Formats: sequence, structure tokens, C-alpha cells
Amino acid sequence: MVGAENPPVGTPAGMRKINQRAVLDLLRRSGPATRPQVAKDTGLSKPTVSQALLALEAAGLARATGHTSTGTGRSAVLYEADPTAGYVLGVDIGREHLRVAVSDLGHTVVARRDERNTSRSGTALVSAVGALASATVREAGLSQADIVVRVLGSPGVADPDKRCFRHAPNLPGWGKAGLLDELEGVLGPDLMVENDANLTAVGEWERGAARGASVFGCITIGTGVGMGVMVNGQVFRGATGAAGEIGYLPYGQSHAAGEGEDAPPVRGHLEEATAAQSVVRGARELGLGTAKSAREVFRLARDGDELALRAVEAEADRLAYTVASVAAVIDPELIVLGGGIGTAADLLLDPIDRALRSFTPLVPAVVQGELGDDGVLTGAISVGLRAAEGLVFERKVGAA
Amino acid sequence: MVGAENPPVGTPAGMRKINQRAVLDLLRRSGPATRPQVAKDTGLSKPTVSQALLALEAAGLARATGHTSTGTGRSAVLYEADPTAGYVLGVDIGREHLRVAVSDLGHTVVARRDERNTSRSGTALVSAVGALASATVREAGLSQADIVVRVLGSPGVADPDKRCFRHAPNLPGWGKAGLLDELEGVLGPDLMVENDANLTAVGEWERGAARGASVFGCITIGTGVGMGVMVNGQVFRGATGAAGEIGYLPYGQSHAAGEGEDAPPVRGHLEEATAAQSVVRGARELGLGTAKSAREVFRLARDGDELALRAVEAEADRLAYTVASVAAVIDPELIVLGGGIGTAADLLLDPIDRALRSFTPLVPAVVQGELGDDGVLTGAISVGLRAAEGLVFERKVGAA
Repeated sequence: MVGAENPPVGTPAGMRKINQRAVLDLLRRSGPATRPQVAKDTGLSKPTVSQALLALEAAGLARATGHTSTGTGRSAVLYEADPTAGYVLGVDIGREHLRVAVSDLGHTVVARRDERNTSRSGTALVSAVGALASATVREAGLSQADIVVRVLGSPGVADPDKRCFRHAPNLPGWGKAGLLDELEGVLGPDLMVENDANLTAVGEWERGAARGASVFGCITIGTGVGMGVMVNGQVFRGATGAAGEIGYLPYGQSHAAGEGEDAPPVRGHLEEATAAQSVVRGARELGLGTAKSAREVFRLARDGDELALRAVEAEADRLAYTVASVAAVIDPELIVLGGGIGTAADLLLDPIDRALRSFTPLVPAVVQGELGDDGVLTGAISVGLRAAEGLVFERKVGAA
Repeated sequence: MVGAENPPVGTPAGMRKINQRAVLDLLRRSGPATRPQVAKDTGLSKPTVSQALLALEAAGLARATGHTSTGTGRSAVLYEADPTAGYVLGVDIGREHLRVAVSDLGHTVVARRDERNTSRSGTALVSAVGALASATVREAGLSQADIVVRVLGSPGVADPDKRCFRHAPNLPGWGKAGLLDELEGVLGPDLMVENDANLTAVGEWERGAARGASVFGCITIGTGVGMGVMVNGQVFRGATGAAGEIGYLPYGQSHAAGEGEDAPPVRGHLEEATAAQSVVRGARELGLGTAKSAREVFRLARDGDELALRAVEAEADRLAYTVASVAAVIDPELIVLGGGIGTAADLLLDPIDRALRSFTPLVPAVVQGELGDDGVLTGAISVGLRAAEGLVFERKVGAA
């Protein structure tokens, strides 16, 4: 529905608004431009463009940014979309870390804070997230009123009815009804929430290794295991939002199904086998008693440590199993190893490819993510910016 | 692009054509209707409707089908879309069978032939398919010119460049470059080809157990194993058309990946384990030496034969593994057991559900398909009819 504050379409006021939006979108998309360039690219007359730019400047949505400097002739004023017209808050909550970033509308991160997640309860975690977000907004020299959109990435699947997360066993209290309301209480209203693996996929698609991919999966491994799937630039969620919850692949179940267990395990079988701590556990079982983190196992493997290399090989086999399963179901053109596991791509990619080719003809390209630990935040900010562009315009022009 | 034979949009001739199409689409969608009903439902004036119905009758696209019989008052003529305005040919090629059906535009099958596939080579199979299709068209009292669209379902994935099928190891010669041209040579031009599991999914979505499902998979098991995935009423193909090739799930590979084998097997690991002949093989390994077909094993199980019941249980476990893999990747709301395996749903559904719940929280509804062995043909005809409706109108009215 067209909002009550919108001038009717077809009236002069309505046309002026449409033209202003066209000019603003062009500046956002193509960068700084002069009046004649804007007129040429939008097809609007020069007087209409001048009027629109004046209105956008007055609303704080566009600004002069300098002059063209051609050798001879008159120089012209360059206009750009004002990146300070609004801000987006991105939050990445993981079992081990909290990360918050604030970005302006020009995709520039103006403040960023990371800290370890030391909370032992849902309530403690909600407060810690709230405090970190407030500190980051203050560090940017902003107030909450400057934040137009807030996007939170978390393990699990948001449950819109119970207002909590399902399938997030690694975050205590995350399945408590009303948790999302508590998060809105500390972060601000109209919080957008999204699965962290989905946001990493968005990040890699918008600004990373998956640019332009039609069907791809982005696998992330940390405390848990997840995958974001994108089809034609949109997150593919499945029927209940659980698409890509590959921690629940029936790894090691192929001969034992239906025997013994009566209730499903809290964590999925693949997740038990593949998550970061299992790299450490595997290395220890092989006799590498000193390894404290997956990162350390990978470092030792790079130094040529035989036991660490065998632990890495085992992780590669489990990833090959995962990629083969995904390929047989959705036939992606590309699998990105995102998040922390991407940093071990130098060790993993060859053995994954070798294992894959030994048991399936469906072998997608498997590549290293480009965003590393920033994947979730990058995706959160991308999602936030998509929403913010329309909102900022409506607030500053629609209400004028 | 608008075709050269189309009257320009906005001219009286163009408007007449648009109105005729609107009237025809209404009759196809809603069934027989009187002039006033058509006028009411399309929003067109009665004179416009009368003119459109006259033109559609003259073109052979609509016809009078009787009169309304209200108690008092004048009765009115009922019109319907003429189902004989065109015909669709559907072909289902499997390792063990060939099936052909001809349907009119009203979804009524007017001829149908089935025979066993006894061909040992691609060339022999192409001739057998051509002969069966010709016989079926003749049986319907039609000529090739009456067939508007031809749709062929086959195992594997059509390769548009090499004009053959990939991933169809059970059909000898099916990977030979130019095979699709040979098939067009015997079946007719502009042959639409589609994976058989995908067509079964279309059939179950249009006229079977999956009506209205947003995201679902239809698993079929015969000589091979396949799955069609549909998202919002469209077949989901993946990047190269191999989505749903679940025969390549890494079943039994979870601990052996990367060891030993250098080349992928011709058939997928799950397919080796799960296809119909493996039910027989499994039963024999259990000591049931007499079973000759999966159908017979299922019959013995229904009679309470212990060994047959154990073979069925093993098949249910493998299916649970498959459903769990699919659920972790695409989170379907529904899995349909289509094709022949659906007829054993009474034996399989409970143990599948039990096995699933023992190792994953992502448990979609698993149900019996409603179309049995007719799934591929039903889907082929549905796909053909979608295409035929526009084509028939363009040929009979567009060229007028």
C-alpha cells in the first residue's frame, strides 16, 4: 500500500518525488555525477534534475562533493548521494565472539568492535550484545536515532511466533520464547534477524568470492556448522527457514539408522563430527596432545606436522562428504568455504577436490571465501543497506 | 519480442486478440460458462464477449456445449474451451518400460500405450520409442499434425550442447552426442525433454500428493534413484540441471572418502544401495533366495515374511538417510514417494519416520505419491499443456 504521507501518483508532487528518487538512485549506483550527466543517464530534463538535486540537498540526501576539472571550459559541480544520510548497525553473535559494525549508506564502516563472548546465559548475552552495540554507535559519534536499520546474525533459525531461535544449541537461552523481544529491547526496534550462515552467503555474493553465482552454497564452520544457499541473488530458506542446516546431515548414520536411539541428538551428527572443536578432538585422538584450537592444528599442519596433517585430511574428507551431499541435492555451481574455515583453504581445497572426484561425478568448484571472519557482518550490512535506502528516502522526502 | 504476425498492441485488432485470449483463458480455467458469466468474470462488455466467442468458435478454440437449465426464464448457451483444438504427446522412457500418452487440451488422455523396454542399444531404443509413439497417435485417430507439443521424460540430465543425456548410466547409448536429434527424428520437431524425476514431481504437484506445497521433493526409485525438487510451482534445476540427482549422495562414504578409488563410479553410491534391484539383492543376501522383483519382496513382507520384512526395513533406513540429507540442505515441507516405490508406502512410511526422528530434528512430512507409475506421463502432459495453450492460440488466432 502507498503510505498516507505519499503525494498521489500522477500529481506534480508525486512526480517530483519519483524524479528525486530516480536521481538519488543513480547517484548511489554510479557515484558522483554532474547535472548534465544525471540528466543524460536518467532521461530527465536539466531543470527537473536541478530541482531534484536542490530538494535532495535540502533533505540531506545528496551533497556537492567537488568540481570536474576538465582542461578548458567551465568546471561543473559534482553531486553524490550523501553517505551520512543514515546508518546501518550489523551484529554478529557467535558462541565464541561478538562483533558489531556501523556502516554509513556509502558502505563505509565507521565503527567496529569485536569481543569474546564470555556469557553463560541468554540474559547475560543479551546485555553484552546491547552494551557492545551502544559502545560502537557512540564510538562512531552517532546516536540511536541515526541508525536506520539494525540487522542481527545468529546461529539457528528465527521463530517468528515464539520470538526466539530454533536449532541454536550452542547458544544457551537462545530458544527461550520472547528472546527476540529482549534483543530489540537493547538493540532497538524493528530488528531484522537472519541466520549467520545465510548472512555470510549474502556477504560473499555481494562483495566476496560468489559475485554473480546463480546457485551457490557458502559453508561456514566454527562452533557449529552451517550453510547459506543463494539462488539468483536471494537467500533460499526452505519451507521453515532451515535450508542449509547441514549440521543435521546424517553423517556416519548410513548403516546405523533406526537402531538404538529414540530421540534426536541436540546437535546434528555432521556438526558433532565437523565443527572446529572436532578438528582439535581429532588431532588429540591422533596423538597431537598439545593442540588447543583448530587454528593451531592448521598452523602445525602448515609446518609439516604429520599428525596435524592427518587431522586436516580427516576434516577435508568430512567436508567432501558435505559438498557431495549438497551437490546431489541442489547442484550448485560453486561452494564457498566462508568464515574461519576459509582461512585453512590452502590446506583443505586439494584434498576435498580429490575426495569428491573419487566418489561423485557432481563436483562443483570449491573456493576460499574472501571475507574471512567479516562474512556475517558484511552480509548483515548489505541486507541492512538494501532496506535502509528506501527507508531513508521515505523519511526525509516522503514526510516533507 | 512481439512476433511479426501479431497485430500491434493498442490497435483495435490487438485489443480484440487480447480480449479473445482473456475469454479463452477463463473458459479453460473455470469450465463452461454463459456469455453473461464470461462478461462478469472478465470485466468485458457483453458485445465484446459475444464477438470474442464468435471468433474463438470460428478458430476452433471454443465451442457451444449445451444450455443452462434454470427452472424458469430463458436458458442460455454454455461455451467451453474446445479440448480438441490441439493435443499433447507425453513419453516416459525407463530402463524397464516405455509409456506413451496423448492428451487433449482438456487434460483427457485419449490414447495410452505401455510396453516393456527390451532394447539393448540406443538406436534400438530410439526406434522402439518412435514406433510406440506413432502407434499411440494413430490409436487416438490423430495425425502428427494434431500434436502441438511433445514432452519426453528420461533418466539423466539433457545436455543442450551435445544433444544427449548426462548421468543416465542405465540407458545404453543415452550419452551419445546427437541422441536428442535422433529422438526428434522419430518423435517430431521441438521436442521438450525433461528429467523423469522432475516430471514426476510436476505431476504430483499439479494433480497428486503435493498440490500447493511450497518446497518439496519427489523421490522415485526404480532401476535408478532420482528426485524432482519444486519451489513455488517451478522445477528447481540447480546450476547444471543436476539438482535432485540423489543417486550420487555419498551413502556409505562417510568414513572411506578419499581412500582407494581414483575415478568416480558410473552409478552413485546411494543408487547402488537403494535402487529397486538392491531391494531384491538385499533380500537374497538375507536368505530370501526366491524373490525376483522389489514388488515381490514387498508382497512377501505384507504376508509377514520375516526376511522380506528385514529387507524392507533396510530400504526404509536408506530412504531415511536420503530424506535426512535432503532436509538438511533444502528443508522441504514435504517429501513424496513417487513412482513404483510409492506403492510400498504402507510398509515404508512408519520405519522411515522412526529412523528420521532418531537422528535429526528436521523431519518433513513423508507421504505416498498419488500417481504411481503414471507420474512421469502426468508431469509430461502437464508441462506440455502449459506450453500448448499459448501455442494453439497463437497458431489459430495470431496467424488469422
